[in-house]
Amino acid sequence: MKFPMIHVCYRVLDLEASEKFYIDAFGFEISRKKDFPDDFTLTYLQAPGLDFEIELTYNYGHEEPYTIGDGYSHLAVGVDDLEAAHARHREMGLEVTDLKGLAGGAPKFYFVTDPDGYKIEVVRN
Amino acid sequence: MKFPMIHVCYRVLDLEASEKFYIDAFGFEISRKKDFPDDFTLTYLQAPGLDFEIELTYNYGHEEPYTIGDGYSHLAVGVDDLEAAHARHREMGLEVTDLKGLAGGAPKFYFVTDPDGYKIEVVRN
Repeated sequence: MKFPMIHVCYRVLDLEASEKFYIDAFGFEISRKKDFPDDFTLTYLQAPGLDFEIELTYNYGHEEPYTIGDGYSHLAVGVDDLEAAHARHREMGLEVTDLKGLAGGAPKFYFVTDPDGYKIEVVRN
Repeated sequence: MKFPMIHVCYRVLDLEASEKFYIDAFGFEISRKKDFPDDFTLTYLQAPGLDFEIELTYNYGHEEPYTIGDGYSHLAVGVDDLEAAHARHREMGLEVTDLKGLAGGAPKFYFVTDPDGYKIEVVRN
């Protein structure tokens, strides 16, 4: 019995802003949408050519920011040119950390924050 | 510039219990481990043959349960035989919801809860 991972899901306050963030910052594409009127609506995004999706849940009528807690950490994406990606995300005006390495080593990753405060780690391939 | 999704990361209180859960319930394999003594240790798990990983973070000395908040929702896995998977997870004594469908349709998914309370959605392929 096989259980491939297919998506990760989190709730967002402004669906349009979140869609735009993931499309503009990472080139993700909207693969499908499912709307359940008066209840919630779902937008699925994926990196072109990859089967794994982000499922963004927008709950109608929910107006308070969601709490992320201290358990969930982040979603990570890989990139070939880490420095170019970092410069591009900075130029876009996104909330971006400095480049980071482990134990004094070369830079290997940084974090970008999405509109709801979820962290996206960008890791050198 | 391509940004394939490569992992999702969350923090766990009992690393051994979490590793056992993902291995036993879903057949995931430990792909690698990285230890930073006195600070934190990481275990990466993946479904055989797929590049996407779960990164479990264990922080040394952390003894309080993590809070998951109401923003992060779940990680999803697909399966061919939903009813057999559901029966197997029930037999394992895991915390498992009933089979669920949307708007009165046929069962399409259910949820399993991991040792820290993170939800895993099991979806019919």
